[in-house]
Amino acid sequence: MELSVPQFDVVSNLFSFTIATMGAAALFFFLSRPYVGHKYRPALMVSGLVVAIACYHYYRIYESWHGAYRLNESGTAYVPTGAAFNDAYRYADWILTVPLLMVELIAVLALPRGEARSLLVKLVTASALMIGLGYPGEISSDTGTRWLWWGLSMVPFLYILYVLFTELTRSLERQPQAVRGLVSAARLVVLLTWSFYPIAYAILTVTGTKNPIGQVALQMGYTIADITAKAGFGLLIYFIAKLKSDTEAESEPLARPVSTGPAFA
Amino acid sequence: MELSVPQFDVVSNLFSFTIATMGAAALFFFLSRPYVGHKYRPALMVSGLVVAIACYHYYRIYESWHGAYRLNESGTAYVPTGAAFNDAYRYADWILTVPLLMVELIAVLALPRGEARSLLVKLVTASALMIGLGYPGEISSDTGTRWLWWGLSMVPFLYILYVLFTELTRSLERQPQAVRGLVSAARLVVLLTWSFYPIAYAILTVTGTKNPIGQVALQMGYTIADITAKAGFGLLIYFIAKLKSDTEAESEPLARPVSTGPAFA
Repeated sequence: MELSVPQFDVVSNLFSFTIATMGAAALFFFLSRPYVGHKYRPALMVSGLVVAIACYHYYRIYESWHGAYRLNESGTAYVPTGAAFNDAYRYADWILTVPLLMVELIAVLALPRGEARSLLVKLVTASALMIGLGYPGEISSDTGTRWLWWGLSMVPFLYILYVLFTELTRSLERQPQAVRGLVSAARLVVLLTWSFYPIAYAILTVTGTKNPIGQVALQMGYTIADITAKAGFGLLIYFIAKLKSDTEAESEPLARPVSTGPAFA
Repeated sequence: MELSVPQFDVVSNLFSFTIATMGAAALFFFLSRPYVGHKYRPALMVSGLVVAIACYHYYRIYESWHGAYRLNESGTAYVPTGAAFNDAYRYADWILTVPLLMVELIAVLALPRGEARSLLVKLVTASALMIGLGYPGEISSDTGTRWLWWGLSMVPFLYILYVLFTELTRSLERQPQAVRGLVSAARLVVLLTWSFYPIAYAILTVTGTKNPIGQVALQMGYTIADITAKAGFGLLIYFIAKLKSDTEAESEPLARPVSTGPAFA
C-alpha cells in the first residue's frame, strides 16, 4: 500500500500534535492538583496518568509510522519499508488508559465507598474486556474475523453505556446541582467519542484494510477521538473537581479556602 | 536463532507496554507521597525509584531487542543481526531494584529502629547475593554451569523466604489488624513472583538457550513477573501506607488529618 506525500504527512503531523497535546495535558493535570479539594486530587492524578501514558504511546506510534514508510527515489510517494505500522501500540495504550478513564470519572464523583467500588468493578472490567476483544479483529485482514471480534467487543461497550446511563444517573442525584450538567457532559463525551472507535473500525472493514484513504482516515479518526476522550475528558473532570471544591468551600466558611491550601504539593 | 514476525512482535510490544506501565507507576508513587502520613513517605519514595529504574532498563531492553534482530528481505521472519540481545540490562536492573523492594516492604511497616535495621541487613544482603549469583549462569549456555549458579542463587532466595515467613511474622503482630492482610498479600507476591524467575530460568536450561519458543517465553515471563513484582507490589505498599495513615489519623483526633499535612515531602 502506497501513500501520497500529503497522506503520509497529515498523519505524521497529527501524531506529533497529539504528543504535544497529551504531554501538556499531563503537566496541567498533575500541577493543578493542589488547587482542588483533597477529595478530588485522585481524579486529577488519574487524568494525568492517562494522558502521560498516551503521550508515550503517540511517541511510539509516530516512530512506527516513520518506520513503516519511506519516500521513494523520485520523492513523489511514500512506499512501505516492509516493517508493518504497529497497531499494537494503540491497544497497549487503551488497555491501560480506558479503564483509568472510568476510574477518573468515578473518583471525581466522590461517591460513598460501597457505591464507588461497585461501579468501579463493573466499569473497569467491562472496559478492559472491550479493548481485549477488539484486538484480534484489528490485526486481522479477514472481513469475517473482523466483524466477529467487533461484535464481541460491542457487548461490554453497550454494557458500559447501560451502567453510565442508568446506575450512574441515580448517583448523580446526590451531586450538587451545578455539577450535574458537567457530569452529564462527561458521560456524553464517553458516548460520542467511544462510539467513534467501533465506527472507524467498521468503515475500514468495509473499505478493506489495504485502502490508503481508509487507513489515513482511520489513523486520523482514532487520534482525534483519543485527544477528545483523554485530554478533553480530563479537562471536564478538572472543571467538575474545581466546581465541587469551590461549592464545598463556600458551604464550610470556617475551612480554609481550597485554593490557598499548601500550594507546593 | 530465527524468530517469526509474531514472536518478535509480541516481545517487542510487551517491552513497550512495560516502559509505559513502569513510567506511569513511578509518576503515581512519587506524586502520591503527600497523601500518606510522614512515616510512610520513604516507602513510596523507594517504590517510585524501583519502577523509575525499571522504566529506564526496559527502554534499554526494548532497544537491545530491536538491535539483535532485523526483518529479512522477504519480510517473513526476524533474523539475528549478530549483536546479542543484552541480558545484562535485566541484571543491572535487578541488582538495584530487588534490594530496594525489600527496603520498601520494611519501610512501610515502620518497625522500631533496631528491628528494622536487623531485617534490612539480612534481606538486602541476601537479595543482592541472589541476583549476583544468578548472573554467571544466565550468560552461560552450558547446562552444568547454568544449574550450578542456579543452585547457588537459590540459597539466598530460600533464606529471604525464611526471614519473611518467620521473623517478619513476629513483627506483623504489632501491625494494625486491618493492615495484616495486606502485608501478608505483599509477602505472598514476593513468594509467587520471585519464584517465577528461577522457574523460567530452569525451563530455558532444559529447553536449551537456542530454542525460540523458550526464549520468547522467558522474555515474556521475566517481564510479566517484573511488572507484578515492582508495579503491582508497589501498589500494595501504597495501599498499606494509605490504610495505616488513615487508621492513625482516626485514632488521633486532635492531629491534623493526614492528607492536609505539608505536601512537599
